Amino acid sequence: MSEEKIVSAALIIIGNEILSGRTKDANLPHLAQILNEVGVRLLEARIIPDIEEQIISAVNSLRQKFDYVFTTGGIGPTHDDITAECVAKAFGQKLIRNPEALRRLQKHYQETGLELTEARLRMANTPEHASLVDNPISTAPGFRVENVFVMAGVPKIMQAMLDNIKHDLRGGQPILSRSVLCHLGEGTIAAGLSTIQTQYPQVDIGSYPRFGSGSFRVTLVLRHTDGALLDRVMEEVVALIETLGGEPRFDED
Amino acid sequence: MSEEKIVSAALIIIGNEILSGRTKDANLPHLAQILNEVGVRLLEARIIPDIEEQIISAVNSLRQKFDYVFTTGGIGPTHDDITAECVAKAFGQKLIRNPEALRRLQKHYQETGLELTEARLRMANTPEHASLVDNPISTAPGFRVENVFVMAGVPKIMQAMLDNIKHDLRGGQPILSRSVLCHLGEGTIAAGLSTIQTQYPQVDIGSYPRFGSGSFRVTLVLRHTDGALLDRVMEEVVALIETLGGEPRFDED
Repeated sequence: MSEEKIVSAALIIIGNEILSGRTKDANLPHLAQILNEVGVRLLEARIIPDIEEQIISAVNSLRQKFDYVFTTGGIGPTHDDITAECVAKAFGQKLIRNPEALRRLQKHYQETGLELTEARLRMANTPEHASLVDNPISTAPGFRVENVFVMAGVPKIMQAMLDNIKHDLRGGQPILSRSVLCHLGEGTIAAGLSTIQTQYPQVDIGSYPRFGSGSFRVTLVLRHTDGALLDRVMEEVVALIETLGGEPRFDED
Repeated sequence: MSEEKIVSAALIIIGNEILSGRTKDANLPHLAQILNEVGVRLLEARIIPDIEEQIISAVNSLRQKFDYVFTTGGIGPTHDDITAECVAKAFGQKLIRNPEALRRLQKHYQETGLELTEARLRMANTPEHASLVDNPISTAPGFRVENVFVMAGVPKIMQAMLDNIKHDLRGGQPILSRSVLCHLGEGTIAAGLSTIQTQYPQVDIGSYPRFGSGSFRVTLVLRHTDGALLDRVMEEVVALIETLGGEPRFDED
């Protein structure tokens, strides 16, 4: 197994509605899954409100630390949609009315017969050196500036944008996982599991308990790019479970 | 209406399983709701992996910026549970075996007949100047150091711990909200909504579109501590919707 460089990413979820508890974010799990497939590791996510200084600060801090940064939310037509101007400021670029984005919006609103209001025109604004990310659902595009991808917050649109972005990402090997469930307590299995983790420091071994009605349940998850290695480590985990009197199960999560 | 100081909070969600997309976080919406009730505003959340330097850095950065910091995850018995030692390091405190936590664990495991393994004993570790947060579900306590509250990641346990914490939080007025749904496009309502926002800058006005089957839907949400003010602003929002030919609806989200 070659020791390859880890390609890393961070997500910035922009929106008061997530922080107020009103809306549950659905974009992180989807992004994580797509990134796993293309071999990019999501190593941080931040959820921040529609406040200019917090957006600028998160973009600038994370784009220097990670290979890719994704943002969701704040690119619609209303007053609380301020992501485009904040990203422009973060990069020290002018905010422009992007000619290609404008052309797409004009065509779309002509076809739908709706008025292209001044508010809707704001959705054509991008930092001056941005490239567009197609939006096949509702036309108003996302955009990319260097390693930062700006996407919509509405899950269906975000997913469509990400489909268009993912081929441009240069990741490593896809990240694979294996999991096994057993009805042992975490404290029973912890010592043996720790020994296995020490033996295979390169494998990410996670232990996730659930509390059912009085019975222990723990799912052990192994993650790495090397499937054969995962199978070998899983054999040891299974042996550990059996030694402790547990019954390994693979049929449920 | 008095201009009171905003009491702010941040949440740190610790766990590879959230960032891998395997587990969906359920703790943020619950924390947000409880904080709304006690008049504390959740202004940032970070989701980070079980990596020491990221935990220490997040704790130290956020505890200086916000009145309260909450963490979830990483306080179980397995090798990937490193929150307690990281919080101790963040505060420059020694990690100790907390005598009261130890006493509770000894009693609990004696009653259940399970072995108090070395791994389980780790759950009695806290920073030296921590005070304990009761855990009525599975005994192993959370803890508080200054303005940082360390809670379990399992939602049922986190919620029980938060029930014990919330009376110690010194918040402001509870944060109230009003919402109205209409079938207008965001771009249609944006200009009028922006005028209302300019008139009432102290009210947090959010616009949240959904994409159904071909029809527009947008929910407008007003948030502030002053219910009478919210009612006044909502009257203007309703008048705006009606002027634009929309039909305000209060019966669904």
